[in-house]
Amino acid sequence: MAYDKAAVRQIIDRVRADKRTALTAPEGKQICDAYGIAVPQEGVAHSAAEASALAGKMGGAVVLKIVSPDILHKTEAGGVLVGLKSADEVAKGYDTILANAKKYKADARIVGVQVQQMLGQGQEVIVGAVTDPSFGKLVAFGLGGVLVEVLKDVTFRLAPATTGDALSMLDGIAAAEMLKGVRGAEPVNREALAGLIVRVSELVNDFPEIAEMDLNPVFATAKGAVAADVRIVCDFAPAEPRWRPSQQEIVTAMNRIMKPKSVAVIGASAEDGKIGNSVMKNLINGGYKGQILPIHPKASEILGYKAYPSVKDVPGEIDVAVFAIPAKFVAGALVECGEKKIPGAVLIPSGFAETGNVEGQKEIQAIGRKYNVRLMGPNIYGFYYTHSNLCATFCTAYDVKGSVALSSQSGGIGMAIIGFSRSAKMGVSAIVGLGNKSDIDEDDLLTFFEQDDNTQVIAQHCEDLKDGRAFAEVARRVSKKKPVIVLKAGRTAAGAKAASSHTAALAGNDKVYEDVLAQSGVIRARSLRDLLDFARGVPVLPTPKGENVVVITGAGGSGVLLSDACVDNGLKLMAMPSDLDAAFRKFIPPFGAAGNPVDITGGEPPTTYKNTVKLGLSDPRIHSLILGYWHTIITPPMVFARLIVEVKREMEAQGIRKPMVASLAGDVQVEEAAEYLYLHGVPAYAYSTEIPVAVLGAKYRWARGAGLL
Amino acid sequence: MAYDKAAVRQIIDRVRADKRTALTAPEGKQICDAYGIAVPQEGVAHSAAEASALAGKMGGAVVLKIVSPDILHKTEAGGVLVGLKSADEVAKGYDTILANAKKYKADARIVGVQVQQMLGQGQEVIVGAVTDPSFGKLVAFGLGGVLVEVLKDVTFRLAPATTGDALSMLDGIAAAEMLKGVRGAEPVNREALAGLIVRVSELVNDFPEIAEMDLNPVFATAKGAVAADVRIVCDFAPAEPRWRPSQQEIVTAMNRIMKPKSVAVIGASAEDGKIGNSVMKNLINGGYKGQILPIHPKASEILGYKAYPSVKDVPGEIDVAVFAIPAKFVAGALVECGEKKIPGAVLIPSGFAETGNVEGQKEIQAIGRKYNVRLMGPNIYGFYYTHSNLCATFCTAYDVKGSVALSSQSGGIGMAIIGFSRSAKMGVSAIVGLGNKSDIDEDDLLTFFEQDDNTQVIAQHCEDLKDGRAFAEVARRVSKKKPVIVLKAGRTAAGAKAASSHTAALAGNDKVYEDVLAQSGVIRARSLRDLLDFARGVPVLPTPKGENVVVITGAGGSGVLLSDACVDNGLKLMAMPSDLDAAFRKFIPPFGAAGNPVDITGGEPPTTYKNTVKLGLSDPRIHSLILGYWHTIITPPMVFARLIVEVKREMEAQGIRKPMVASLAGDVQVEEAAEYLYLHGVPAYAYSTEIPVAVLGAKYRWARGAGLL
Repeated sequence: MAYDKAAVRQIIDRVRADKRTALTAPEGKQICDAYGIAVPQEGVAHSAAEASALAGKMGGAVVLKIVSPDILHKTEAGGVLVGLKSADEVAKGYDTILANAKKYKADARIVGVQVQQMLGQGQEVIVGAVTDPSFGKLVAFGLGGVLVEVLKDVTFRLAPATTGDALSMLDGIAAAEMLKGVRGAEPVNREALAGLIVRVSELVNDFPEIAEMDLNPVFATAKGAVAADVRIVCDFAPAEPRWRPSQQEIVTAMNRIMKPKSVAVIGASAEDGKIGNSVMKNLINGGYKGQILPIHPKASEILGYKAYPSVKDVPGEIDVAVFAIPAKFVAGALVECGEKKIPGAVLIPSGFAETGNVEGQKEIQAIGRKYNVRLMGPNIYGFYYTHSNLCATFCTAYDVKGSVALSSQSGGIGMAIIGFSRSAKMGVSAIVGLGNKSDIDEDDLLTFFEQDDNTQVIAQHCEDLKDGRAFAEVARRVSKKKPVIVLKAGRTAAGAKAASSHTAALAGNDKVYEDVLAQSGVIRARSLRDLLDFARGVPVLPTPKGENVVVITGAGGSGVLLSDACVDNGLKLMAMPSDLDAAFRKFIPPFGAAGNPVDITGGEPPTTYKNTVKLGLSDPRIHSLILGYWHTIITPPMVFARLIVEVKREMEAQGIRKPMVASLAGDVQVEEAAEYLYLHGVPAYAYSTEIPVAVLGAKYRWARGAGLL
Repeated sequence: MAYDKAAVRQIIDRVRADKRTALTAPEGKQICDAYGIAVPQEGVAHSAAEASALAGKMGGAVVLKIVSPDILHKTEAGGVLVGLKSADEVAKGYDTILANAKKYKADARIVGVQVQQMLGQGQEVIVGAVTDPSFGKLVAFGLGGVLVEVLKDVTFRLAPATTGDALSMLDGIAAAEMLKGVRGAEPVNREALAGLIVRVSELVNDFPEIAEMDLNPVFATAKGAVAADVRIVCDFAPAEPRWRPSQQEIVTAMNRIMKPKSVAVIGASAEDGKIGNSVMKNLINGGYKGQILPIHPKASEILGYKAYPSVKDVPGEIDVAVFAIPAKFVAGALVECGEKKIPGAVLIPSGFAETGNVEGQKEIQAIGRKYNVRLMGPNIYGFYYTHSNLCATFCTAYDVKGSVALSSQSGGIGMAIIGFSRSAKMGVSAIVGLGNKSDIDEDDLLTFFEQDDNTQVIAQHCEDLKDGRAFAEVARRVSKKKPVIVLKAGRTAAGAKAASSHTAALAGNDKVYEDVLAQSGVIRARSLRDLLDFARGVPVLPTPKGENVVVITGAGGSGVLLSDACVDNGLKLMAMPSDLDAAFRKFIPPFGAAGNPVDITGGEPPTTYKNTVKLGLSDPRIHSLILGYWHTIITPPMVFARLIVEVKREMEAQGIRKPMVASLAGDVQVEEAAEYLYLHGVPAYAYSTEIPVAVLGAKYRWARGAGLL
């Protein structure tokens, strides 16, 4: 769109020169005009014919007002007429007002009659823009009115917003139906309203000085959207943006850090119980094949590896230095790393911002920037990169290779990730601790994992995003290729308070996170278990080719709960075509229920499961299957599990791959069956109807966000 | 309240006599008058003074309307004036209207001027009543307006509702704040509005013929609540209520059924794979000490027990008969049970209503009624009562005794209950299959478990409630003594559809279930895992003595997630008093965070956990503890688990018992610690921050509902 940026620049410069921050109403109106944001139209007519013509251009009802320097109390003078519609009404109104004015004050100087578009029709909405400390410029949308305020029914997107973003905002409020025309009301013009949102978002993006903007109310009708009131506030001293290297620089550095040829351990120790000892043992016992370089002021050898007093004494390149020394020695050792041109430092030590030592953290940040050393941490457990057999951590080793990369801001959550992964046999490519995030953060990891062929899914726990804007931009790109799952802790006010006492991080408004993460194609996990279950289940599922989900169940009761879970997780139970219904009925007892769920009933032999699942996989109209198994003597758990895997393989041999998850109801033997199924590509869960569906739902959310559905 | 019931009876009888179902507006108004439900006041004045007096009594603005048989178009005749406030305005208005009328039609007969209270002020709300097929009369409340309709923000209670129920409805809508006065609006008169709701609820309770009632809109102001429009619809042919024995009869019969001295197995078999064989083996191997009586047409002995051709051939009393014969033989055998005066029949066979054989089910229901035999099922797995070592089922045996009684409508879910219980070492008192619920249903079980000393918590899965009214009444009483947890399947439209294909049960509107279950003090589980986790965790927790919850965590990251979970589960993080804060700080490192969560930081030895937990348990201002453990070498999982149990015991010796739950973040060893903690009364969960808090939240919800907090 062609905007008159020069006009806006001029107004904002004047505001700055005036040392004001708030714009006047006429200034706001001028800015709206410059960006094509509709405000009530008005004009001054000097004849009845001119008034009619002006009103005709505006469309709809108008208000007429006398314009005279000698008439202050217009209404008293009979100088205001409202709700005039036809050309004739307007013309007559013009004459009436002039006559009234003459009668009121015979010698009044008459400039003319103002013709103003009359608002108050249509749906009242609010469009606004705010500046978030993490995400920067955001555009907001909601309905107008007190009730909406009470219900906090408002939605946000990063600015600038695309037309698609803006249209999604109209559907993104709970009261979305109101815009579609309820009880005979006309639906609003969605394109016009979305256009107005886009213009606001582009305005605040083009002029970062605009800190806040409120169009409240905007009257949205079938014809258009007009902002009745405009409020704009500037901030001429914005916070400095966080430093960001280029994507290429990130890739180069992170590849050396995550897949190093040589690792220095600063503070390596031969003494049991020391962190520098645990790191050494994990590197050695983890099976790392690169060079291990213990750094120690005195020792000449540690655990069989030649030791050096400083990284600077090491001949050849070092890709990453793991710090296992107290906080007070970090800065000095980091300068040496810089001088040695080591691209990455893994800062395990605590004692920085999280304990109040903000200056200490700033110091190491400055060193990192000066020497171009990327910093992981401080205050972390380190990281794992399984495909290099690399355990650069003081925690227990982890070696189940797979395609999920996980990260956590908190060390405790990191340990939960490791424990769960081991227990649930989840194959991972990497586990990374981010701690205080003095430098490397979630978006650096996303940029690395995006191009890491060993990683197919990225799951991250975070309490804040230091640079939400950068995260969102990278996530939007990466999530098109690989699912990105995020557990944002500090969702609630209480949680956010705990987060700030824990990491000195200001937790953002959760609704902003909610909307921006969705806009970025991120799958948001609601709980730690969800994060872990999604990370484990999503990568083994193939991408669905469509929205049609079918439930096949031996337990009718599971079928009901699985159906509930489908609705909860935004999955669409396919309306069963009659020929397919008949085809299923051939395999199930006459009192079983076809339709969807397909209820094969509980007492059935393995062949019934086999036939129905095979049909479900082979019919191209069905895109995903949810299985409900009921443990019986006739079809014991492992018999069921093996036959499902067999059918799956048979279909794969024919080139058919569909997502399939299972809920297993039965005695403890179903646990073995669940494990077997998972290890063969069918996420399966004992004693739960909701987890399998949530996992499938997560895959669908991703596929939709990535534009694959 | 004194209601004019005779007046209502007269009107309703007239409507019935007229063969109408809908009441006229004046009839509706008269009924409101009889029940003290405020409607707009009106009267006819015959002089200006009289008009002023009438208006004065009404208060607020009035509308004046000419009353004349000769003036049809009142407005055209200048015979309507609105918004008159002062006595003077009303008197002048009276005169104006009369003058206008004369002018309009000089010979018009003037009856007088109607003075009508003018509404349209205050908050528009809706009060109504409906008749639910399961719950009977319900009263409904919501705000008025289209937006509220779109958001479906309405709440229900069983009628008659108490004043407490009615007040809770005002807080039970999402937009509750609107009633409290937003943006300078006056708050509504809560007592008046609640009073109106109570009156409506009592009216529909007193006159069951009133099937539906709508007061829409009701104008609620600071002064009162007035119904502007009344709509009442009668139903003179209501459905027959479900048969209900008295509570005493239920207790007597259920005690014999659930704790029998003798069990007959109709269709007992020596042949492996037969249901009658599995039942026999479960009775025998389960260790049941009462009489086992196989019934078989020919065999003289089965699995070492003397067999009889019919129950009628058994000498002495039989308490319960387990049916393991095909559906077609059930009716005949049931008659024999009746003649033998057996109080209960456990009908395992399927092939009744669930397969379309509705008549067959009605037949056995009739036999049950005729002979006073209570029927469990048909179409069930049977039941367990562990404290009698009784496994009256064809499924696997279960023997971990405990205090939770579980039931399921579906067999598959029953198997999931058994598997989970065994896997999670959950002690149960009973597991009962209810299947088609031809007779015994959830409220019979509640009545039995209420007085069963082996049962402390009742957890039920259901797809519908055959008699929601009876269930709610019993649950309301029982939940005051023992927690009642319900998983209502078929919450969503899709789930309800699956439910109806599965059990021929019509699933009710979920919002009705939601509100009525809450009104009955029931803890509603949102998922199968929640049902199971609550059933397992709630009984081991002591009842909290207050709302103050404190989180003590070694992992700051867990603290944030635990805080989020507290908000999600309606738990209140205590604002830490400064002396207590100081007391905690003594035990934790200087960079740890006191406040709440108490963040003891990750590297701490067992003593830090011990000291802080001990302080948390001993300070009387703290009512519950949530522990966040972080696996470190310094405090390994089992060390943590043992010390927590030790501290707990030490406190118990001093008479201190508080609910305590734990979230364990760490490597797989935390699983052993979680089990140890649970078995010692601390529900603890590996890799989850949300489950422990949800379990504590369930205990709190119960305690609040039972009036213990």
